[in-house]
Amino acid sequence: MKLKNSKSVQVPGFKAGGIACGIKKNGTKDLTLIVSDTPAACAGVFTLNEVRAPSVVLSEKMVKSGKPIRAVVVNSGNANACTGKAGADNCHTVLKETSLQLGVRDEEVLMASTGVIGVPLPVEKITRGIPHLARHVSASRWSYAAEGILTTDLVAKMKSVEFTCAGKKIVIGGIAKGSGMIAPNMATMLGFLATNARVSAKVLQEALEIAVGDTFNRITVDGECSTNDMVLLMANGKAGNDEIKPGSKAFQEFLEALTVVCRDLAFMIVKDGEGATRFVTIQVRGAKSRNDAEVLGKRVANSMLVKTALFGADPNWGRIMGALGDAGVAIKPEKVDIAFNGMTIVQDGSPLEDISLAKLRKKMKCREVEITIDLNLGKAQCPTYTCDLSYDYVRINAEYTT
Amino acid sequence: MKLKNSKSVQVPGFKAGGIACGIKKNGTKDLTLIVSDTPAACAGVFTLNEVRAPSVVLSEKMVKSGKPIRAVVVNSGNANACTGKAGADNCHTVLKETSLQLGVRDEEVLMASTGVIGVPLPVEKITRGIPHLARHVSASRWSYAAEGILTTDLVAKMKSVEFTCAGKKIVIGGIAKGSGMIAPNMATMLGFLATNARVSAKVLQEALEIAVGDTFNRITVDGECSTNDMVLLMANGKAGNDEIKPGSKAFQEFLEALTVVCRDLAFMIVKDGEGATRFVTIQVRGAKSRNDAEVLGKRVANSMLVKTALFGADPNWGRIMGALGDAGVAIKPEKVDIAFNGMTIVQDGSPLEDISLAKLRKKMKCREVEITIDLNLGKAQCPTYTCDLSYDYVRINAEYTT
Repeated sequence: MKLKNSKSVQVPGFKAGGIACGIKKNGTKDLTLIVSDTPAACAGVFTLNEVRAPSVVLSEKMVKSGKPIRAVVVNSGNANACTGKAGADNCHTVLKETSLQLGVRDEEVLMASTGVIGVPLPVEKITRGIPHLARHVSASRWSYAAEGILTTDLVAKMKSVEFTCAGKKIVIGGIAKGSGMIAPNMATMLGFLATNARVSAKVLQEALEIAVGDTFNRITVDGECSTNDMVLLMANGKAGNDEIKPGSKAFQEFLEALTVVCRDLAFMIVKDGEGATRFVTIQVRGAKSRNDAEVLGKRVANSMLVKTALFGADPNWGRIMGALGDAGVAIKPEKVDIAFNGMTIVQDGSPLEDISLAKLRKKMKCREVEITIDLNLGKAQCPTYTCDLSYDYVRINAEYTT
Repeated sequence: MKLKNSKSVQVPGFKAGGIACGIKKNGTKDLTLIVSDTPAACAGVFTLNEVRAPSVVLSEKMVKSGKPIRAVVVNSGNANACTGKAGADNCHTVLKETSLQLGVRDEEVLMASTGVIGVPLPVEKITRGIPHLARHVSASRWSYAAEGILTTDLVAKMKSVEFTCAGKKIVIGGIAKGSGMIAPNMATMLGFLATNARVSAKVLQEALEIAVGDTFNRITVDGECSTNDMVLLMANGKAGNDEIKPGSKAFQEFLEALTVVCRDLAFMIVKDGEGATRFVTIQVRGAKSRNDAEVLGKRVANSMLVKTALFGADPNWGRIMGALGDAGVAIKPEKVDIAFNGMTIVQDGSPLEDISLAKLRKKMKCREVEITIDLNLGKAQCPTYTCDLSYDYVRINAEYTT
């Protein structure tokens, strides 16, 4: 399959936009709207945190109903989580105003929120902003939408792909935000994807869950799972393709394209992780099961000692061994091989003697580091993508206040 | 029971000492020896990490044999972990030299190591140092011993208590080290305790496990579990008391005194946690089970977002709610109450409106912070003791190299 990649987004039949409505004190964009010209099938994955914002509860309920939707409204700068009944009411108020301005039904609009937890949502600022925003969405303003969902992110995250499926041009595009509170647990950030493909909500959900499992769920910045995360995928059928059926070649192609979009957005989130200076791939191989490889990879990726060593460009494999041993998974330490950027440093659990630490350190000083851990116990493998832990993570999170 | 507390250690019938044998480049003490004049019953708890140093494997085997011991030799600056067969051989060499110099049997000496993982143990430096060290142990040199086991610790950690049990004066004293790689998992640091009480190895083990469960296992600095941790308790019977029997009043008193020593040493470890600026108690109450309270307390204590907020003196209860929801324990967010230093800020899952954030921030700026989390689901509770995450933790661990 030939995929055309792009870092900007434009999806036939979708309009998007973002404005500053006054939630963020610094005056940057904080309100985003994505609208489908026609009813779109919708799939979604949502945070597994026991503490969930009303936007998560409500949007999940609507996605589960299987009914088509028309729009998603997103605010940043306030998570509207742990805000009690008032929080739920405010969520409804925003949906009502959005549907009114768009001339659609209340239950055709989804909502997401991100930002500080436990502070009442400044609902008037949002409702005052919506009429203006609704008038200014356009096919070419996905970049505004991408800006409107950011919190501590430094860069907007966009991605789209284009491919031909049985003669029809299909586009999948989307935006995401991340930065802190990022750990793999279903969805662990906000992501909004759109496609002009014709595909039922059920099949869309199936594709989204597979794609997210291999991409967004494989990343971690700090092992923290948010109260507000969700990834939504809307499909409006404008491509005019035959409906994509599960198990078909079209489904495989669609899934492959969707996975590319999700993976690129996921990587952008890690690279823009709070304070991140390095993008790190932890590849666990030779495990007895994929689950073992996943648990071990996450344990290493979330180790504060491993993360600080990576910041210091220190090939500190001892900390990796310590983390592997502490993951609650049976391993054989004397069988473990570890390589940094393709250079084996540990074989059968012990360090190779002829390693040039100076050379290795130099290798570690690049923006991207790959750590390969071979357990030599089986054939399963799983990658985890993470970043290092720097002074800036501490600064950002010690100063980011309620 | 009347307990006499002391921050220095002297236990009848035990000698201790510490010297610099050249493992640490900065020339500070790195070799410790504790000797009992007569064979002593010994109890021990050891790291549950799957990756274990030969000193852990060997010492655990000897403790499990139930046979009396005469000495413990400890080196710092090198963990002798992940060092293959050579590491195990080096461990034996050190034990052999120590027993030779003390005129005791090989199997009467235990060993512990702490420091960098995966670097060959400079065994000659140690064996050259042992004869000198063996000649210079004395009843009054526990402070030297406390210094000899430190790594990134800033202060030596000592504690003893004295009490009268059926007319006999019993002393329990000990030393510990901690700093980084500290998380509750059986033992998670090094601790060496001695008592002149007469108590069998079996009963000693029972008392130690209870005491450690309530003290050392309740602390966490960074959620990392070491490959080398152990706590040993030796009893030489010099007090001449009737042997302490399980379930007796004497056992209760002994356990109480032992718990005081362990708790104080555990608190010293947290206060001296790498980069720590605050000592934080996380008290989880109203849980359905103690295990629930423990899991939730640890999840909050190990949250990088909670720890950085504590460093910033930020009463960021939203991050606490996020961590609680992500612990894998069923909670009812709408029932949770949270208080900082006795000041309730969250009731029924929502923030109280009349809180003075300025006042609260001031409260948070002290050296000791207590966070009380009431789940209002049951009657079980469990405390966790931790510290904040500061720039210095990153600095120490980005610069501490293999």
